[in-house]
Amino acid sequence: MGKPLNIGIAGLGTVGTGVLHILDRNADLLTARGGRPMRVTAVSARDRAKDRGVDLSGALWCDDPLDMVDDPAVDVIVEVIGGAEGVARLLVERALAVGKPVVTANKALLAEHGGRLAEAAAAGDTTLGYEAAVAGGIPVIKSVREALAANRISSLHGILNGTCNYILTEMRQTGRNFDEVLKEAQELGYAEADPTFDVDGIDAAHKLAILAGLAFNGTVRFEDVHVEGIRKIGAEDIAFAEELGFRIKLLGIARADNGEIELRVHPALVRRSAPIAAVDGVFNAVVVVGDFVGEVMLEGAGAGAGPTASAIVGDLLDVARGIRVPVLGTVERTLKPLAVRDLDRHRGAYYLRLMVKDRPGVIAAISAHMRDQDISLESLIQRGRSSTDAVPVVITTHETSEAAIRAVLAKIRQESAVVEEPHMIRIEPFNGR
Amino acid sequence: MGKPLNIGIAGLGTVGTGVLHILDRNADLLTARGGRPMRVTAVSARDRAKDRGVDLSGALWCDDPLDMVDDPAVDVIVEVIGGAEGVARLLVERALAVGKPVVTANKALLAEHGGRLAEAAAAGDTTLGYEAAVAGGIPVIKSVREALAANRISSLHGILNGTCNYILTEMRQTGRNFDEVLKEAQELGYAEADPTFDVDGIDAAHKLAILAGLAFNGTVRFEDVHVEGIRKIGAEDIAFAEELGFRIKLLGIARADNGEIELRVHPALVRRSAPIAAVDGVFNAVVVVGDFVGEVMLEGAGAGAGPTASAIVGDLLDVARGIRVPVLGTVERTLKPLAVRDLDRHRGAYYLRLMVKDRPGVIAAISAHMRDQDISLESLIQRGRSSTDAVPVVITTHETSEAAIRAVLAKIRQESAVVEEPHMIRIEPFNGR
Repeated sequence: MGKPLNIGIAGLGTVGTGVLHILDRNADLLTARGGRPMRVTAVSARDRAKDRGVDLSGALWCDDPLDMVDDPAVDVIVEVIGGAEGVARLLVERALAVGKPVVTANKALLAEHGGRLAEAAAAGDTTLGYEAAVAGGIPVIKSVREALAANRISSLHGILNGTCNYILTEMRQTGRNFDEVLKEAQELGYAEADPTFDVDGIDAAHKLAILAGLAFNGTVRFEDVHVEGIRKIGAEDIAFAEELGFRIKLLGIARADNGEIELRVHPALVRRSAPIAAVDGVFNAVVVVGDFVGEVMLEGAGAGAGPTASAIVGDLLDVARGIRVPVLGTVERTLKPLAVRDLDRHRGAYYLRLMVKDRPGVIAAISAHMRDQDISLESLIQRGRSSTDAVPVVITTHETSEAAIRAVLAKIRQESAVVEEPHMIRIEPFNGR
Repeated sequence: MGKPLNIGIAGLGTVGTGVLHILDRNADLLTARGGRPMRVTAVSARDRAKDRGVDLSGALWCDDPLDMVDDPAVDVIVEVIGGAEGVARLLVERALAVGKPVVTANKALLAEHGGRLAEAAAAGDTTLGYEAAVAGGIPVIKSVREALAANRISSLHGILNGTCNYILTEMRQTGRNFDEVLKEAQELGYAEADPTFDVDGIDAAHKLAILAGLAFNGTVRFEDVHVEGIRKIGAEDIAFAEELGFRIKLLGIARADNGEIELRVHPALVRRSAPIAAVDGVFNAVVVVGDFVGEVMLEGAGAGAGPTASAIVGDLLDVARGIRVPVLGTVERTLKPLAVRDLDRHRGAYYLRLMVKDRPGVIAAISAHMRDQDISLESLIQRGRSSTDAVPVVITTHETSEAAIRAVLAKIRQESAVVEEPHMIRIEPFNGR
């Protein structure tokens, strides 16, 4: 049996406590699998008195997590403090600088500073595990970085935020609107009191930035990711999507085309027969498309203490086993910033929902604007008749450009018969199988 | 840049040729990801003249693949000859014995001799990669052995044979019977001229044995796997299953219970809402259930030159990167034979289809046999009326034991009104979500 792996855990919230529970409950298994015992030798958390259900009397309590960096009784640091800056960043940087491996669940940190941290790990001749930062317990980082690494990846897309997927699923299943379902999700603990990070797509964008760097062997500037959330999705949009054979999902999409990468997080219509359309509730899924492997989909719980801690302890096993892979999957000096394509140059199909006064000539005017931009209609639904209220007009287009659709939307907004801001959702042509 | 990884490939059929194509087409990528170039320095195949679309003039041609074992110009051997015995086994054993790593797609070899090979690799201080042996390009071996290794796995199940899944999917979509669809599958190249290995469940059982050893940290005697194929599935069974809200899939199932493992490959009714029910055609999927991660599903192409070669080159990247994990995921001396539960002690729900003469008292007699075995009916459908032909009676039960259902079937066979061998299919209670 090898010598024990001594672990320092910085942060004992739900995830840190989950890690303690795995290390305790599965100790026998981890020793057999890692070839050496794992034990917690140091912890750092605000509340020392709180009962975490595990005996921590053998561990050193550090008031300052940075004390773990130079402590020879700590072989590897688990960073579950969170945040792209502050103590989390300092801790990770200093540990890597002295050659101490780090395992983290910190998606913001990786998304904002992944390239620098990869270089720091290489310079320190050590490693940084972050399986837990993307899609919880789903083994997507290891799959892209190792198992699927023989492939040139042409695209990946995924449901990367369980809160949004839960809200959209509930909206579909109950017909209720966003605000109502968000409120319920907050009561149930599926959404934070301040839901911005989730519902505005930022969390999904962090994960997408990390995945794209890995898949395309480059560094991503987080500001280059186009981000839209789900606040504007109406119950009507979900119902119309169903009627047209689609589901609405908040997707993160990274696609290579002619040396450029599209990087975008936004609600999308996906065909109901596409496997990802069936991923409901708080579940996450990632589809990776490689030149030899074809399409691979990984699905499971994308958040929560258990799944996230599972990923962290999986990374700790890599450390115990002496597994070291370049942090971004490729030797650091070959890493270049990815050339991100401007969204204006995106080509695809679109869904538009307009609320219009029901009077002759409206459709003719809208159709003329589309003709002027060379946009070809795929379907048009005008539902209901009313002499007083606005009625919805739903249009789907054939493939066109984002620039053209924006130009049309600018024209449509000026039509006096159009009474609300038009709703635009991109349609993604994933294969149904 | 590190020194090149010199590869010897034994077998240049479709998979071996696929490996050549990846190494050729993605050479730049593999060098950046592995930190060193990969090059083919030796090959062995029957037909030397055949054009494989890749320049092999720099590689040594070995008439005997065993020559690669002691050739210092070969750092790692790719074994894609196939077969549990013969030259494939010899080659792998000898290479491991001299400490040379091997990557293989050989599921029969691993299923029959996995434990011994794991010990041989440990003794030779080297490694054996076999991601390609299970579910083609889907990263299931690496996921179970590494990314999910923090979990005590309670069960796994999967669609492990694309030929069977294709046949069952076609039968459902077209209403045709097994023989007709098999014939078409053979014409399309989805089934072999001798389909035994696939349609009788042996191929799926090989893969299940490998996965179970990994998941439960033990060795499996292949004979302990209960194996049934799909030849007896009728078009009627598929239609009745649909009517009852189920799909029929050939599944490999490994489940731990009270220190024993159930290991079985057989057709099963799964609820239409379960994610695995939606995996159609030649696709494979594996669901792993762990104590912290919950349920993770991996889905993709389970066979074919591209996906299988993707897995092989992924394993070669592990070798290039110096990654070494115990072959069965746990240090070899902790490996014990798994205690496999006798199928008679399986508990579950069942689907029965009987063909009976339509006369009074038949249902009463069958019900009495079930009562005598304490089996409770969940549903009963008697469809159609005929004074001359037999009509189907379809019964689903609540949970009971395999022994009880067998006892009932023995009684039912003796009923003069029952005119064919009864059809029994197990119902698996996977959660729909």
